[in-house]
Amino acid sequence: MLHYEKPDGEDIRIFRDIAGDKNVIAGGDDIEPYSHDETEDYRFAPDVVVKPSDTAQVCAVMKRCFERGIAVTPRGGGTGLSGGALCVFGGVCLSLERMNRILEIDTKNFTATAQPGVVVETLHNEVEALGLFYPPDPASKGSCTLGGNIAECAGGARAMKYGTTKDYVLAVEAVLPDGRAFRAGAKTLKNATGYNLVQLLIGSEGTLAAVTEATVKLIPAPLVRRTLLAPFDSLETAAAALNELFLKRVSPCAVEFMEKDAIKSAERMLERSFPYSDSEALLLVELDGSDADAVNADVEKAGGILLEAGALDALVAEAGHRQNEMWDMRRAVGEAVKKISVYKEEDTVVPRAALPALMRSIKSIADRHGFTAICYGHAGDGNIHANIIKGDMDELRWRRDLPALIADIHRAVVGLGGTISGEHGIGFSQKEFMPIAVSQTTLEIMMSVKKAFDPKGILNPGKIFPDAPGSGASNTGGGQ
Amino acid sequence: MLHYEKPDGEDIRIFRDIAGDKNVIAGGDDIEPYSHDETEDYRFAPDVVVKPSDTAQVCAVMKRCFERGIAVTPRGGGTGLSGGALCVFGGVCLSLERMNRILEIDTKNFTATAQPGVVVETLHNEVEALGLFYPPDPASKGSCTLGGNIAECAGGARAMKYGTTKDYVLAVEAVLPDGRAFRAGAKTLKNATGYNLVQLLIGSEGTLAAVTEATVKLIPAPLVRRTLLAPFDSLETAAAALNELFLKRVSPCAVEFMEKDAIKSAERMLERSFPYSDSEALLLVELDGSDADAVNADVEKAGGILLEAGALDALVAEAGHRQNEMWDMRRAVGEAVKKISVYKEEDTVVPRAALPALMRSIKSIADRHGFTAICYGHAGDGNIHANIIKGDMDELRWRRDLPALIADIHRAVVGLGGTISGEHGIGFSQKEFMPIAVSQTTLEIMMSVKKAFDPKGILNPGKIFPDAPGSGASNTGGGQ
Repeated sequence: MLHYEKPDGEDIRIFRDIAGDKNVIAGGDDIEPYSHDETEDYRFAPDVVVKPSDTAQVCAVMKRCFERGIAVTPRGGGTGLSGGALCVFGGVCLSLERMNRILEIDTKNFTATAQPGVVVETLHNEVEALGLFYPPDPASKGSCTLGGNIAECAGGARAMKYGTTKDYVLAVEAVLPDGRAFRAGAKTLKNATGYNLVQLLIGSEGTLAAVTEATVKLIPAPLVRRTLLAPFDSLETAAAALNELFLKRVSPCAVEFMEKDAIKSAERMLERSFPYSDSEALLLVELDGSDADAVNADVEKAGGILLEAGALDALVAEAGHRQNEMWDMRRAVGEAVKKISVYKEEDTVVPRAALPALMRSIKSIADRHGFTAICYGHAGDGNIHANIIKGDMDELRWRRDLPALIADIHRAVVGLGGTISGEHGIGFSQKEFMPIAVSQTTLEIMMSVKKAFDPKGILNPGKIFPDAPGSGASNTGGGQ
Repeated sequence: MLHYEKPDGEDIRIFRDIAGDKNVIAGGDDIEPYSHDETEDYRFAPDVVVKPSDTAQVCAVMKRCFERGIAVTPRGGGTGLSGGALCVFGGVCLSLERMNRILEIDTKNFTATAQPGVVVETLHNEVEALGLFYPPDPASKGSCTLGGNIAECAGGARAMKYGTTKDYVLAVEAVLPDGRAFRAGAKTLKNATGYNLVQLLIGSEGTLAAVTEATVKLIPAPLVRRTLLAPFDSLETAAAALNELFLKRVSPCAVEFMEKDAIKSAERMLERSFPYSDSEALLLVELDGSDADAVNADVEKAGGILLEAGALDALVAEAGHRQNEMWDMRRAVGEAVKKISVYKEEDTVVPRAALPALMRSIKSIADRHGFTAICYGHAGDGNIHANIIKGDMDELRWRRDLPALIADIHRAVVGLGGTISGEHGIGFSQKEFMPIAVSQTTLEIMMSVKKAFDPKGILNPGKIFPDAPGSGASNTGGGQ
């Protein structure tokens, strides 16, 4: 069992000295928002929330926690889907929400430098106003932060063309568990100067260091965007049709997939009806570029390919209302499915051509275990979010049988050449399944890297690595 | 002083058992080709060269060396430009040349899986025959290997549009210094499953593990390519003109820069004359895409922008002879400049808009120290190779004064927001300058990562990290 010191009165006094009285929450109702993220129904309250306003304050808080052996969990927007920001062992929640400034948008070098607490959509808007583009666009972009996106290597719908967060971060400043700040990377497009610590930090879920500043690459904003909605009479036909697009060299910026139950949930939640909501599956295809004629030609080609591959129709939206409607549906799906009941979400990802097989597997595994799975996600890069819905299943059975179901899904995913998280991270909710995705040797290397950064294990403990038998907080019950 | 065991008769017998008699070279003239790479005039002979044919053999060789405390230096094509493959402490040269098979080209998922010894141009040719594209294209592509490209995070001319090696490797198999093989990553476009060990290995210069297999992402091959040559009457005008292209939203796939002395050297070496070889500087701009009309429009736009920014002409090559001639010139420049005399090459990289300032700095620093610097390189991503030419300078002064000159260049580069290696790596030749590029804390983190992978320090020792005072092989003399 891991043991961490609880912050005492003296610690809290010191935190208040560092960050200011009103930026330290020690108990009371105000702690509640910091006791969860968007991951299922997990709840773990921190003992203290500290909201530093600059790197020096982060260093000072971290140094005190390091000396005292207090657990520290960095927190961005609290929108994570694997429990990366949960204070599993209590201790200090290091909320970076006040460090939310964009420090520079460099229109000559196409870079932006920002603090970790900046909301991703704010960054999008600011750079787009200057004709530039920061592509990562997780569905939570309106409230998630750049720091959280870096911690989880966030993706989103456009990742298939533009890549994920890791493809944009050029340099970071970060604070080690012992309180030392350091910089890694440079404001350059190429860098072969020592180990790539920037890439090591991206996706490390705040377990190695707390990122306090980041410089990201921007690209010229695409000028034209067209959206195409295609209904199918089966999940597998939709998944197979998608592959035809690639084989025929159409390169969309997004291909989103929704199955009927997901669409219906979105309709119920938004109290609206969407086109083709009665079809078994929908593909939402987006194409973009700088030349309207070229994009229109691609849309026409894409529509033809989808129809030939079994689409029941191919509805094109140029811009404006119709396009927004299609994306409203897609963006609502995640929240809507999660409103049905208690659920558990799997962030499966496979080589794209294996999507039809993945759809078959998820459905047949869920059937075999007597559970319901609703699927949607970023089909274009083989990343499907499978939501296991509790519905009216009794609590005991849900808790007892869910882990075996999830393990079966993960084994199927790995068997198809994929892995157990595409963009949500492992965090707390998936850590017990890591041995399905990676070998013992790979896990041991990751643990030795963790130890190199965080010898006392105080930074975001209880994440990524499976618990040693009997060692503490377990997640296999699915929600607690 | 680091101490490593020398391989003895028993070790050599074991290596022969593992890899076969004819795949072990222990002494004699056949060792010579393995005693250097393409980095200046460094020479360090290994005690033994071992050429395994599969991962199991790599594991067995590594295990023996680990148990005995023998230094092991992995080697690809031997084309490195920072001495990454030099056997600085002798020991075993682990040449991966026999592991040169392409294992799979997956035309559905757009990936290729290959062994580390495959020559990059072979990979290019094989995937391009299927309409696919592996963008990294270092000038040495005809002889460098995929494994070496991964070790050094190789870039090349097209990196400005398509990125470097790190943007394409999805998964690897690698062997740890203790002989254990492991896999990292997956054959998926997204992966948020634990630490990104793939990215940590890329650019780690064979100091953490020996990569024995890699899966890379492919993209659809661009169908159209146009090249434009623009002469300028000064280096700074050329560098400034380049920035105009970006500000006006032209996105070339390559912008190469050559100064007059570099072009003249190429003419002498190839015994040919090239267009505009009397101008002070040339920009070679390449644009590509899938639509000929769109690419032609971009070429016209680019030509107009360059002329307005001071280009003396803008010569367009559609394809074929003229285009090849332009690239022949560019590709010959590196070798030609290095034939002038003994030299030292710096792989400077800065934010693109700082290029004019970088050009000014390099020239004035070289002047101040009384040295000659000839520049060329990948201007489009701010990556300029500055070659310091010894010429007829006496040996004593060359060795004595060169380190201070290099340090001044590196300080200027870092002062401009850049870093000391864009694509060649730190290896042996730049390690003493690391403290100019990164802080002591950052260096300590890198060293702790090294220790996590390689507790005995047997894998590619004497690279990346500056020597502790009095600790062994030094590189500050510039060539030995």
